[in-house]
Amino acid sequence: MRTPLPALPAFVDVLAAAARIAPHAHVTPVLRAHSLDALAGCEVFFKCENLQRVGAFKFRGACNAVFALSDADAARGAVTQSSGNHGAALALACKLRGIALTVVVPEGAPAVKLAAIADAGATIVRCAPTMAARNAATEALIAETGAVLIHPFDNVHVIAGQGTAALELLREREDLDAIVVPVGGGGLLSGTALTGRALRPEMAVWGAEPTGAADAHASLQAGHCIVDRVADTVCDGLRGQLAPRTLALLQRHADGILLADDAQTVAAMRLLWERLKLVVEPSGAIGLAAVLAQPVRFAGKRVGIVLSGGNVDLDALPWRMRA
Amino acid sequence: MRTPLPALPAFVDVLAAAARIAPHAHVTPVLRAHSLDALAGCEVFFKCENLQRVGAFKFRGACNAVFALSDADAARGAVTQSSGNHGAALALACKLRGIALTVVVPEGAPAVKLAAIADAGATIVRCAPTMAARNAATEALIAETGAVLIHPFDNVHVIAGQGTAALELLREREDLDAIVVPVGGGGLLSGTALTGRALRPEMAVWGAEPTGAADAHASLQAGHCIVDRVADTVCDGLRGQLAPRTLALLQRHADGILLADDAQTVAAMRLLWERLKLVVEPSGAIGLAAVLAQPVRFAGKRVGIVLSGGNVDLDALPWRMRA
Repeated sequence: MRTPLPALPAFVDVLAAAARIAPHAHVTPVLRAHSLDALAGCEVFFKCENLQRVGAFKFRGACNAVFALSDADAARGAVTQSSGNHGAALALACKLRGIALTVVVPEGAPAVKLAAIADAGATIVRCAPTMAARNAATEALIAETGAVLIHPFDNVHVIAGQGTAALELLREREDLDAIVVPVGGGGLLSGTALTGRALRPEMAVWGAEPTGAADAHASLQAGHCIVDRVADTVCDGLRGQLAPRTLALLQRHADGILLADDAQTVAAMRLLWERLKLVVEPSGAIGLAAVLAQPVRFAGKRVGIVLSGGNVDLDALPWRMRA
Repeated sequence: MRTPLPALPAFVDVLAAAARIAPHAHVTPVLRAHSLDALAGCEVFFKCENLQRVGAFKFRGACNAVFALSDADAARGAVTQSSGNHGAALALACKLRGIALTVVVPEGAPAVKLAAIADAGATIVRCAPTMAARNAATEALIAETGAVLIHPFDNVHVIAGQGTAALELLREREDLDAIVVPVGGGGLLSGTALTGRALRPEMAVWGAEPTGAADAHASLQAGHCIVDRVADTVCDGLRGQLAPRTLALLQRHADGILLADDAQTVAAMRLLWERLKLVVEPSGAIGLAAVLAQPVRFAGKRVGIVLSGGNVDLDALPWRMRA
């Protein structure tokens, strides 16, 4: 017997998300650099989600999910497991709505990220560093408090919120031939694909994924979620794996996944720092890496790239420093 | 006998510059960060000239000066001495107009900066690393070729061009109480002051200068140009000294100079990288450093800060890196 398909968001949910997050989220700028166009052999339009609140597009989905809660659900508070950009984004969104958030984090999570979450007023609960322990701790919390789980990507409102970045980009540049966004769990790519198909069906929608964490690429080829891979990549934001919900959306609406290895991604990241003067994290630079790696595919096209985030440890940059 | 005052630009020249450079220069975004507002105790609006072409506001003045040349003057080509942001900006502007540029540089100038200038098609002439040798080489070139000197700040069209950054900022935020810009030779501060006095006389116009190169501060106090100081600062773009033209404009239109030491500037630079996700060079960060150092002066105000440039060696950042 087939597993029933999970509820899928539609483009109307992206429009609702845009209205819901408008009082809170930044409309981020779209930037260009002549020298990067020349390198890529195409016209590139960078949607700067590293300039979004908390430094990542994740605020869009988190904000939409938090403000979409009924008053009754909101009163019980929210819970999540992410200590990364989703955790920080959710912490800010919950603070803005004035509701409680608990974040389950594994022992050993970076102190600086936990500090950002705690600064926004969220409660941190530690658990053993295994997925089983995280799930058990999360389920115990939900059973105990009735808190609402807001998953980083397997959530209709989160996906719809992430689709608002492409909505803004297409409002500013309605003539794009392609859009390329990073893919980890697939929330951003799903939302982007929903928006792209609705507003500009002739535009190609690509995910960009690290070769060291190419589970989305493999899952689309296999036709089911592949979840037994061990990620090995500098892109700490792209280690998530598709859920049935995001897989279904990508199967319907995305054109495919382009791969880039870590050396290509770090080189692209450095180009973005040098030429665009933007602090972009590795996960945020993989879109440019994928475009630079596919010069024939994109030659002469108008290509949107979502720079997904800019949260990086300035004391540990991934290129060699001079002494 | 008093030295006759040099010709001074007026606000109408800033408006003419804005029209002249519009086909070539970026209208740069104005960005904000809640966390920086909280730190500064005021509302800060960052005009992102690090996102300008060649990564610095210098393109505005250089572009205006080059496109203001008569056809006869343009045919003889241009010459300058700067191997920094003005040199690169002038090289691009001359390339766009299709005229020759020669840049006189001292032996020992950074290879990476010379490469950028040469890439734009300019000719590089080397001289001994003294001001006397640079001036002699420049004068010889002018005598030989009739080329037009485009000084980095002691030039009416350059000053007028620099004033367009404040023009854009005030168009976007017409309610500013103060604006703070870096001061080296005083071109940006002069242009900003012209614009500020014309559009919003009640707005304070401040320069921000390194304590290790505080000649503008001293010159305004003395009432004449002090040019015998040896600069010692991490702000490589702010080692220039006022000319009589910029001193006269600052005496008439600026409110004064705020000082920041290098430690404050490097701390502000790091804050801009971490919180705004922008690559800003030390000279570009001194405005924020000065505002953070003067919490009483700016408390509760709406303050514009021009982030003047983003050209920095990513292999030699001014903060300590972890091994």
